[in-house]
Amino acid sequence: MSTAVRNRRIVLAARPQGEPKPADFRLESEILPLPRKGQVLLRNRWLSLDPYMRGRMNAGRSYARPLEIGETFVGATVAQVVESLHPEWSPGDWVLAFGGWQDYAIVEGDALQRRLDPEALPVTTALGVYGMPGFTAYAGLHEIGKPKPGETLVVAAASGPVGATVGQIARLHGARAIGIAGGEAKVAHVRDELGFDVALDHRAPDFAERLAAAAPDGVDVYFENVGGKVLDAVLPLLNDFARIPVCGLVAHYNEAELPAGPDRVPQLMGLILSRHLTVRGFIQTDFIGLYPEFLREMGGWLREGRIRYREDVVDGLENAPEGLIGLLRGDNFGKRIVRIED
Amino acid sequence: MSTAVRNRRIVLAARPQGEPKPADFRLESEILPLPRKGQVLLRNRWLSLDPYMRGRMNAGRSYARPLEIGETFVGATVAQVVESLHPEWSPGDWVLAFGGWQDYAIVEGDALQRRLDPEALPVTTALGVYGMPGFTAYAGLHEIGKPKPGETLVVAAASGPVGATVGQIARLHGARAIGIAGGEAKVAHVRDELGFDVALDHRAPDFAERLAAAAPDGVDVYFENVGGKVLDAVLPLLNDFARIPVCGLVAHYNEAELPAGPDRVPQLMGLILSRHLTVRGFIQTDFIGLYPEFLREMGGWLREGRIRYREDVVDGLENAPEGLIGLLRGDNFGKRIVRIED
Repeated sequence: MSTAVRNRRIVLAARPQGEPKPADFRLESEILPLPRKGQVLLRNRWLSLDPYMRGRMNAGRSYARPLEIGETFVGATVAQVVESLHPEWSPGDWVLAFGGWQDYAIVEGDALQRRLDPEALPVTTALGVYGMPGFTAYAGLHEIGKPKPGETLVVAAASGPVGATVGQIARLHGARAIGIAGGEAKVAHVRDELGFDVALDHRAPDFAERLAAAAPDGVDVYFENVGGKVLDAVLPLLNDFARIPVCGLVAHYNEAELPAGPDRVPQLMGLILSRHLTVRGFIQTDFIGLYPEFLREMGGWLREGRIRYREDVVDGLENAPEGLIGLLRGDNFGKRIVRIED
Repeated sequence: MSTAVRNRRIVLAARPQGEPKPADFRLESEILPLPRKGQVLLRNRWLSLDPYMRGRMNAGRSYARPLEIGETFVGATVAQVVESLHPEWSPGDWVLAFGGWQDYAIVEGDALQRRLDPEALPVTTALGVYGMPGFTAYAGLHEIGKPKPGETLVVAAASGPVGATVGQIARLHGARAIGIAGGEAKVAHVRDELGFDVALDHRAPDFAERLAAAAPDGVDVYFENVGGKVLDAVLPLLNDFARIPVCGLVAHYNEAELPAGPDRVPQLMGLILSRHLTVRGFIQTDFIGLYPEFLREMGGWLREGRIRYREDVVDGLENAPEGLIGLLRGDNFGKRIVRIED
């Protein structure tokens, strides 16, 4: 088209202390430049909201470099090609991109993650179970958690896209899956729709006792994506040689300071030693060599209905900040995505 | 011989609170029964003192079951066969046994760990560099630490049998070894005799700064055998994908309660996540399949003088309790062994 495109985008207005506020985000508008050779102009249709985005708002070292003040929020998008100056892409193509919190994006054609086939699976799955969160679950279990038949796995945020997928894959490997979620509706979903062996509400006053009762043979894999009191409740239950893939600690992302003492680091290290634990932090790109296998295996499971998922849609780019703020509180019920434009 | 043998042995008299006291140990005397079919009577010549022994004095779960009050302290010994009712062993044979803190031991012949050849290497090496501590170093690096050429490794208690061996093996793999020890004499030994690239005194008031200066490219492997302030100083220096084999936490073995806050567990978990760390607890028996390879490779290194070691001899079984109490304070200078009878 090569005409001027007005683009709305959301930028980091201020670095939050603790929980982000709406004022930490700013909606701006700009006229996009024209794409150059090798680039494509994308129309973002769906934006993924993910807990890691909180880390990017801090100045400190996290998975990746922090956002600068005034910089457009990063994020995965499902988009359609509007204009292409790259031989591989044509207008109308559906793609998985790192298109950011904006209506349009100009990206290098070589950097597009993959082509999507709207006939095969709903395109939005590329942001959840068939994308980064699903691959996080797949790779973390494949490389670190390694659930074996008869073993017991625990995962929190079990109605979210990582936790839901972790438990279902563990069950496909013959393990028992205990899912933890917040509130009755999510617990019922984890148990009845996702088919976990046990679902528990972390808000129950006797949560730790319930977890212990649900794991009479101990815990062999704890897939850590939240931290906090769930970790505390799991630690005493861990069996010798248990594995703890650590892919997130959302309970702590908004914390501005360390909790009160005593300092339990010596206790944790002592447990790692005496129980022969493996605790390993990762992000899915560490295991990117597994991605083709993931697409093949997970694609099959999804088409066969052996892995289920739930989406939680926020309408409109302008509502993405509230969507992220709520996600960090655990308000989402399923994979939270923003409908920028259908 | 089949005559009555009077045996001195040291038993657990009381469970210590914090640092063990001499009164927690008791020297007893008994007349041994006769060995039965399949058993051998051993004369213990050398007893190994090791930090893990502190854990056995507690009632709680540790690596292994606790000692009972009144039970003979366990421990590896270099011994000679006095009488054998097992076809594989003959009087005069030198063996590595789990003979305990006593003059004699009656053990199952099948349970003897291995035959020792006094012509090949000094028999006492079977308690140190060529035994459990050396294998702990070897296996922890082989399976978890995996030092690569050009990487930086840090190990504490570097004049002790595990630490000394860890640093030297890492150097044989082309890594840079930073050793930490307590006091000038040990530091000089680690640097000048063991050939570490850098040796540092953890008692220096600016220890953490010195460690940071000694690791300008960060730390890729931290072989954890002490915990405490060494761990604290290493944590900020860890590179992405660093590995932390955890085989001991001697700084904490005498602690009766947790240190004051804040609680740094969320910080440690956050570091594991953001730096993609692997933290894994082990004891050497976890990797026992490597033992034949260890004996072959380490035997070669020792005979070629590529791995050096130092022993610290306590004279007399009756002095073993003070020997262990001092070991837990870091008083030993090299592998601490008790000469029961030459």
